[in-house]
Amino acid sequence: MKKLINAVDDVVKEQLEGVAVAHPELTVKIGPHYVYRADAPVAGKVAVVSGGGSGHEPMHGGFVGMGMLAGACPGEVFTSPTPDQMYECAKAVDSGAGVLFLVKNYTGDVLNFETAAELAHADGIKVQNILVDDDVAVKDSLYTAGRRGVGTTVIMEKIVGAAAEAGKDLDACADLARKVNLMGRSMGMALTSCTVPAAGKPTFDLGENEMEIGIGIHGEPGQKRMAMTTADEITEMMMNEILDDKGYSRTVREWDREAGDWVDKHLTDEPYSEGDQFIVMVNSMGGTPVSELYAVYRKVDEMMKARGMTIARKLIGPYITSLEMAGCSITLVKADDELLGYWDAPVNTPGLRWGV
Amino acid sequence: MKKLINAVDDVVKEQLEGVAVAHPELTVKIGPHYVYRADAPVAGKVAVVSGGGSGHEPMHGGFVGMGMLAGACPGEVFTSPTPDQMYECAKAVDSGAGVLFLVKNYTGDVLNFETAAELAHADGIKVQNILVDDDVAVKDSLYTAGRRGVGTTVIMEKIVGAAAEAGKDLDACADLARKVNLMGRSMGMALTSCTVPAAGKPTFDLGENEMEIGIGIHGEPGQKRMAMTTADEITEMMMNEILDDKGYSRTVREWDREAGDWVDKHLTDEPYSEGDQFIVMVNSMGGTPVSELYAVYRKVDEMMKARGMTIARKLIGPYITSLEMAGCSITLVKADDELLGYWDAPVNTPGLRWGV
Repeated sequence: MKKLINAVDDVVKEQLEGVAVAHPELTVKIGPHYVYRADAPVAGKVAVVSGGGSGHEPMHGGFVGMGMLAGACPGEVFTSPTPDQMYECAKAVDSGAGVLFLVKNYTGDVLNFETAAELAHADGIKVQNILVDDDVAVKDSLYTAGRRGVGTTVIMEKIVGAAAEAGKDLDACADLARKVNLMGRSMGMALTSCTVPAAGKPTFDLGENEMEIGIGIHGEPGQKRMAMTTADEITEMMMNEILDDKGYSRTVREWDREAGDWVDKHLTDEPYSEGDQFIVMVNSMGGTPVSELYAVYRKVDEMMKARGMTIARKLIGPYITSLEMAGCSITLVKADDELLGYWDAPVNTPGLRWGV
Repeated sequence: MKKLINAVDDVVKEQLEGVAVAHPELTVKIGPHYVYRADAPVAGKVAVVSGGGSGHEPMHGGFVGMGMLAGACPGEVFTSPTPDQMYECAKAVDSGAGVLFLVKNYTGDVLNFETAAELAHADGIKVQNILVDDDVAVKDSLYTAGRRGVGTTVIMEKIVGAAAEAGKDLDACADLARKVNLMGRSMGMALTSCTVPAAGKPTFDLGENEMEIGIGIHGEPGQKRMAMTTADEITEMMMNEILDDKGYSRTVREWDREAGDWVDKHLTDEPYSEGDQFIVMVNSMGGTPVSELYAVYRKVDEMMKARGMTIARKLIGPYITSLEMAGCSITLVKADDELLGYWDAPVNTPGLRWGV
């Protein structure tokens, strides 16, 4: 294992210390770890909070700032953060307008954010949780019941963060987050494994001429291993699954503030169709350089044009990574004027910045 | 070799086709390749142009846009662009206010930009060339006489692009570029090689527990190979060379528009000292994730504080890469209020964006 790290036990702590000195506009707490806007709580504004295992940077800590997240809770590498991290972060950022947890569907994250929501509620904080489950590749994987939560999270954090910044209330922000999730679909692939520092060796092995399609961001098994092929064929495989998805029905648990208890919600998304417009992300898993992403984007654009679909906005780069894994993921979020308006609003975070 | 590419011969062309569809605000010419602002020539403004081998993205094509480069000339991977690319690009962007070529010190780039300057001059274009030679690691390497041009280029393109946008004339922009170069020092290191698509195998071999300090962005040999060590020790080695540099004297060839011929200029930079403030870039060579760069930044910050120096601005991420090479580079540019003012000016490019 060759990485720019010191002691294996200090990896996340020292990276956060780097964030603290690089970004004085953020407050970084070490032990339990959480990162939040130094100007939080922002009076009258809903605080959008996310979190998950470290190793996916810039997500989530790199998306804390004006117009996006109020706070983020990084776990150890590929390990869910704990309820106390989430609860402490919620207390730090709550202005009284409430806290919205955006939770990637990964069993540890889901359970811990549920506990944190209960703790926050008991403490008098208005709290709501929204699940992201956008990965069309695999349903019911090694670590997750239902579809995994991946790239749509980045787009949700931007859009819902803008709505919170615009003064929308907690229910409106939660409704918007739910809408983004139902509009979003992703799929990823790996050319290489990555190495978790504490493990010291690759999470899985891929042969010299092998790749894995449908992989998860923690290296969870995908749909299939197959011989390496061209960027065009890889892009076609992923895009066809995303574009041909017939709609997905699931039951999610959401917090009911009135009842002070959990309720089941049945949610179904609609197939994409001709004439739709999208926010598209072509994302590096970490080790793939941005130049290769442009070859993928070229094919994405060609396929969408052939179906009469429009790319209204795009992100091309490393936004939700898996350490140094080589490979890419593609995320589409069908977007109406409301979503595009929030997308275009100013944002000022280490990982995304425009308008300021 | 596992990469997201199609035919090896089409790698750069197809990546540029991706840039063309992703960024309609840029005009992309294929054969000879060059990328320029779709709104060029911009009336009354100097056009800043750079170029070099592909494989270092987002540099240079990703830095074309308002407030930075007017145009960029990508060669094949790790191969200098040709004089006709540079000449055609200069003609496309010249408003009559002149064209400034920013040239990384790499023998092929230097010679070809010189020929392009002569062609442009013969065509009645006011033209000037400024060399970047900021790599403190190696003097007189495999492909370059004198110090190599590396990370300072990114910072120069931002600062001089802002000056051009502000309406400064060609001489003022050239003076500013020369000043940035004399203020800038860089050093890089590699944990792994990268693979040039046309070669199909790694440029060099590094053992399982080996790294190379002082490497060039085309994989040129560095100062030394040594056993892998910690992020702190690696950062110390590079920072000590940068901070202890006693000043560097060189003779550069610059175009003299009055004489219509080349003149030699003798330039010497000054050592850094206590109280200085800097723009600092901690850069990924491509395969190293941004999380690890924060561990490096933490040590950079600590070392600069210990010497009574201030980091006024920073960039942390992949800005001047070597395909998928793992490793990092550090660039310091000593900055006064003039440089910081141009740094903070709005910029709108695929690779850097703020203020718009």
